[in-house]
Amino acid sequence: MELYLDMLQQLQSEGRAHVTSSEIGAVTGVSPEKVRQDLFRLGSEGKPKVGYEVAQLTALIRSAFDLDSPKKACIVGLGNLGRALAASAIWSGAGFTLAAAFDRDPSVIGTEVAGIRVRSVAEIFGVVKAEGIVVGVIAVPAAAAQETADLMVNAGIQAIWNFAPVKLRTPEHVVVENQSLAWGLITLSHAMKSQIR
Amino acid sequence: MELYLDMLQQLQSEGRAHVTSSEIGAVTGVSPEKVRQDLFRLGSEGKPKVGYEVAQLTALIRSAFDLDSPKKACIVGLGNLGRALAASAIWSGAGFTLAAAFDRDPSVIGTEVAGIRVRSVAEIFGVVKAEGIVVGVIAVPAAAAQETADLMVNAGIQAIWNFAPVKLRTPEHVVVENQSLAWGLITLSHAMKSQIR
Repeated sequence: MELYLDMLQQLQSEGRAHVTSSEIGAVTGVSPEKVRQDLFRLGSEGKPKVGYEVAQLTALIRSAFDLDSPKKACIVGLGNLGRALAASAIWSGAGFTLAAAFDRDPSVIGTEVAGIRVRSVAEIFGVVKAEGIVVGVIAVPAAAAQETADLMVNAGIQAIWNFAPVKLRTPEHVVVENQSLAWGLITLSHAMKSQIR
Repeated sequence: MELYLDMLQQLQSEGRAHVTSSEIGAVTGVSPEKVRQDLFRLGSEGKPKVGYEVAQLTALIRSAFDLDSPKKACIVGLGNLGRALAASAIWSGAGFTLAAAFDRDPSVIGTEVAGIRVRSVAEIFGVVKAEGIVVGVIAVPAAAAQETADLMVNAGIQAIWNFAPVKLRTPEHVVVENQSLAWGLITLSHAMKSQIR
C-alpha cells in the first residue's frame, strides 16, 4: 500500500488524472489482480478502460493510514541516528510534526538539531503533556531503551517507534513499531544465504 | 528469531549454560510452544527440565542466518542517515565489515566518516571489484536510488540494503532488503489509527 501511495503521489505531482491497475502493477511489481483486490478492500473500484481517479485514490489511502491528521512526535537520543531522523523529510508526509528532542548527555542538551533545542530527558513528562505529543521515537542505545520506553509511557505517549534491538515491555494500549537496523542487517544476511543456495 | 538471538547472546555474556523454552518465551513474548517449534525447525531439541544449551543454540541461529561468515559492505550517500549507519555498531554482529563509502557531493568526497575516506561514486566499480564488496547500502535521496542501484548491480554487488522509499528494479539474482523509514512511519500511523478504534 505504501508503494501504491508513492506512485500515486508521483502521478499527482505530474498532473495525471487517471491510472489503471495494470499501470500501478507495472510500477509497484504487484499483479494487476492483486492491485484491484487491495483497492477494492479499501473501498475503491476502477472504471473499465479508464481506471482509478488518482486524486480520489490518493486521498483514500492517506485517510486509511491516517496520514493527514496532525500528530506530534518527540525523539529521545540525539546520536547519529536520532539526528538523521530529526533532519529527515519523512515527518510531514505522514502528518507528523517533530515537536521535541531529548537526550541525557549534558554536552548535547541545549544544542539545536533540525531547528529544535535538545532538552534533558528529565523534562519529558512536562513537555509531552504541554505539547500534546503522542509519538515517541527511541533512538538510544539498547541498554537504555526499556527505561526510555517507561518514561514515555509515564508521560502519556500513545505510540513508540523503536530503533533499539530490544523487545519493549509496554502496556497494551501503547502501539509499538520496531525498526531495529541490526535486525534489518540480519534479515539481509539470511536472504543472501538463501539466494546463494 | 532475532529476538531469540538477542536474548541468547545476553545469557551467554552472563555465563549461563542452559535456558528453557519457558524462559525464552517469557523474555521474547513468544509462547513456549512456539519457541519449541521454531527451535525444532532449526534442528535443536531441548532436554526436559534442563532446556537448551545456550552456546550451541546461539551458534545454530548464527549459522542459520550466516552471521559469522565475513562479508564486505559499502554505503552510497553520506548524509545524516549514511553517517548514522556508518558509525553504528550493527555491522560486526552480523559478520559485516564496512569497507567503503561513496558520495557524489564534492564537499563530502575526501572527508572521513567512521574512519573511512569517502570516495566519489565514479570509483564504485573499481573499488567493489578490488575489495570484494558484496553488499551495497543505499542511503541517497529517493530520486537517486534507482540510478545508485544500477551502479551497484553493474559493479557486481549481490545484495542491496535500501533505505530509499523506492521499489528498485534489479536483476533476479540481486537480493534487496527494503528499510524505508518513511514506510515505517506510515505503518506506525496506521497502527495508531487501528488501536484507537
